[in-house]
Amino acid sequence: MTAEILAVGTELLMGQISNTNAQYLSKRLNDLGINVYFHSVVGDNAARLKESLKTALGRSDMVITTGGLGPTQDDLTKETIAETMGLKLVQNEEIYQGIKNFFERINRQMLENNIKQAYIPEGAMVIPNNNGTAPGCIIEKDGKTVVMLPGPPKEMVPMFEETVFPYLEKRTGQTIGSKMLKVFGIGESEMEMKIIDIIGAQSNPTIAPYVNMGEVTVRVTARCRDADEAERMINPVIEKIRERLGTCLYSVNGESLEEVVVKLIIEKNISISVAESCTGGMLASKLVNVPGVSKVFSQGFITYSNDAKIDLLGVSPETLKTFGAVSRKTAMEMLRGLIRRTGTRAGIAITGIAGPDNAADPVPCGPAICTGHSRKSGKPAGLVYIAVYLDGKTECVELMLNGDRERVRHMSCLNALNILRKMILSTEEK
Amino acid sequence: MTAEILAVGTELLMGQISNTNAQYLSKRLNDLGINVYFHSVVGDNAARLKESLKTALGRSDMVITTGGLGPTQDDLTKETIAETMGLKLVQNEEIYQGIKNFFERINRQMLENNIKQAYIPEGAMVIPNNNGTAPGCIIEKDGKTVVMLPGPPKEMVPMFEETVFPYLEKRTGQTIGSKMLKVFGIGESEMEMKIIDIIGAQSNPTIAPYVNMGEVTVRVTARCRDADEAERMINPVIEKIRERLGTCLYSVNGESLEEVVVKLIIEKNISISVAESCTGGMLASKLVNVPGVSKVFSQGFITYSNDAKIDLLGVSPETLKTFGAVSRKTAMEMLRGLIRRTGTRAGIAITGIAGPDNAADPVPCGPAICTGHSRKSGKPAGLVYIAVYLDGKTECVELMLNGDRERVRHMSCLNALNILRKMILSTEEK
Repeated sequence: MTAEILAVGTELLMGQISNTNAQYLSKRLNDLGINVYFHSVVGDNAARLKESLKTALGRSDMVITTGGLGPTQDDLTKETIAETMGLKLVQNEEIYQGIKNFFERINRQMLENNIKQAYIPEGAMVIPNNNGTAPGCIIEKDGKTVVMLPGPPKEMVPMFEETVFPYLEKRTGQTIGSKMLKVFGIGESEMEMKIIDIIGAQSNPTIAPYVNMGEVTVRVTARCRDADEAERMINPVIEKIRERLGTCLYSVNGESLEEVVVKLIIEKNISISVAESCTGGMLASKLVNVPGVSKVFSQGFITYSNDAKIDLLGVSPETLKTFGAVSRKTAMEMLRGLIRRTGTRAGIAITGIAGPDNAADPVPCGPAICTGHSRKSGKPAGLVYIAVYLDGKTECVELMLNGDRERVRHMSCLNALNILRKMILSTEEK
Repeated sequence: MTAEILAVGTELLMGQISNTNAQYLSKRLNDLGINVYFHSVVGDNAARLKESLKTALGRSDMVITTGGLGPTQDDLTKETIAETMGLKLVQNEEIYQGIKNFFERINRQMLENNIKQAYIPEGAMVIPNNNGTAPGCIIEKDGKTVVMLPGPPKEMVPMFEETVFPYLEKRTGQTIGSKMLKVFGIGESEMEMKIIDIIGAQSNPTIAPYVNMGEVTVRVTARCRDADEAERMINPVIEKIRERLGTCLYSVNGESLEEVVVKLIIEKNISISVAESCTGGMLASKLVNVPGVSKVFSQGFITYSNDAKIDLLGVSPETLKTFGAVSRKTAMEMLRGLIRRTGTRAGIAITGIAGPDNAADPVPCGPAICTGHSRKSGKPAGLVYIAVYLDGKTECVELMLNGDRERVRHMSCLNALNILRKMILSTEEK
């Protein structure tokens, strides 16, 4: 079966909104094995909509439209499609009641033009809308199918999931199951190299990698008859991928790195505290965004200046003078001061240069910084030291991160969380 | 002039990426007064691309394509368009050198298939690409114009801005100037009510409000002959809007609230420190994301637990027991402890319930919480107290914020920044 997506709305052509509906629907149709060959967008204009619809019906088995189902004069998708397909519009009692109830629920007056929304093409199946007044509908005629959905994603998505997806599953005799694998500590291309043969050998389940702000995601999607079969098909593939990626694979349920780490430390009852310089509270903020973290997280210190590092964490002024605030030694002293002060089982200290400018931070004699940056010009933006403590053991890493200020800080936090996660897992293995 | 946008790429039809290019280009074409009547997306398939191109050229003066200009077999936009328009592809020496230089710059070997990218349709104008290997081109033939751009936004956007936009400005005899106004402390609909007559009375400049995560933005765009004329047209409109919105209008250059506040406190040399409970470092993190903040920001405390509030900020255990951690009194004691400790000229303390669950925090006798939430069930998620200090003066506000955990925390930070901003501005007035 081939399908295409036809979005209706002048606001899309004005660039006021992006056609995210097309992406969503394409993904889901592909999940079902339905080929999508075209997307198109047309404004709130009957003649151009009619032309686009005719073109679409001429070349595809199914056309899914989004938008133009509202109560105003501008909304003409239903009228135009009914006319193009030679169908009359008839009032549907069920929809009429639904709209009436909707207005009662939100305690507002139903308007004259909402009654227009209770009309659908004769013989069409209704797609109920529990989040708005515009119902959708499905028309089957002359071997072609037209599915009409409203434009707002908040209404469109639930309507597609609750009514259209099951309808299409029945028609294609298939369902899909999918799991979202999350990966950290390995680049997208390196990961692809490691699993490219698994990706190539698979057509069902399919394996699709994505990347976003330093976090790599792999979606494993199976086309099958039911959820049990999906599990049986997906799990062996995940295990194969895990063999290759090891602990870089940190979640098979789409969780964020901070969710996984917070879950882990709550489970193991590991109290934690943080001391942040260049990340300036971002790491603590990520931890705090996970509900339940109060069981293990009590306090954090943002020591942005040298004085704060000395006063709050007991970093030695001599260290700062000789090695600079952005140095392995300072990170280690921040960490030691933090643990001395809080007595938590785990601790993280971060110091670095978020940029955009390089820092005049002193460069000691000794091992050069990995970029080969010259001594004279100080330390480069993106240089970060992360020290992590867990039950008496300490690790400290030096990173050269690229990107803008926000990305350097974000990646510093993710790396810190990942180091702690690996330390906890390696303790477990023993 | 009418234009349409034709995106080429199977990854769009698979739903792997969203067609944000179409939105971007539509906005910019509309800025120039060029009407966009259609968007379409087609896969990496020569026959379907040819069909779509013919349709597009049949109904629009100009077609802008994105995607399909890469070096691989899949990339066939240039070849297909040249064939459809009856033009030969010829090697362009300038492009050839450009690609060669690009590979030298990134220190990689130029591959055989990159040479393919040096071919363009005869007579076409080259659109240089400084961020990748795929140049674009402009063809004018038989009264129609085709503009070819690569798919990645990082390449497409600068190429459009540097070459295509000036080309179109010349053709339409128009330029545009625009300013981005940022507003806080007033809802989108309330703001719209206040300026709706100004919006309605204007067709040039146009005034368009948007909203994103609690920050309201108003774009004022003028169509005119040059930048000076744009200024002369836009500035009086901004002044009219400022009269209505007062200090809720915090930037006319699209800056974020934290950028404006950090700029203000650096300018006035106001040192600042923060004490955060529910925001857990997010406020400090926002400050630290602005370059140069180290001049005024030295330290912050994340006091997530009651113990941390007592130990680090000297909040009284009695206060916590009687009024709860989420109370005006606790916020005030956090603030006092913070200022005592850091001696900064400004300070912010935040305590609240980020959710998703309500808190069992004690509810004292006394004034009820604004939501009318029952005493028995504790305090509601979204309840936040913010205390702000500036040069001896203190303000404390109670807020009931809605949304998920992240939004409550984000809005707490923005409100805190805005209170400080207004305190600084009101000191100035005196």
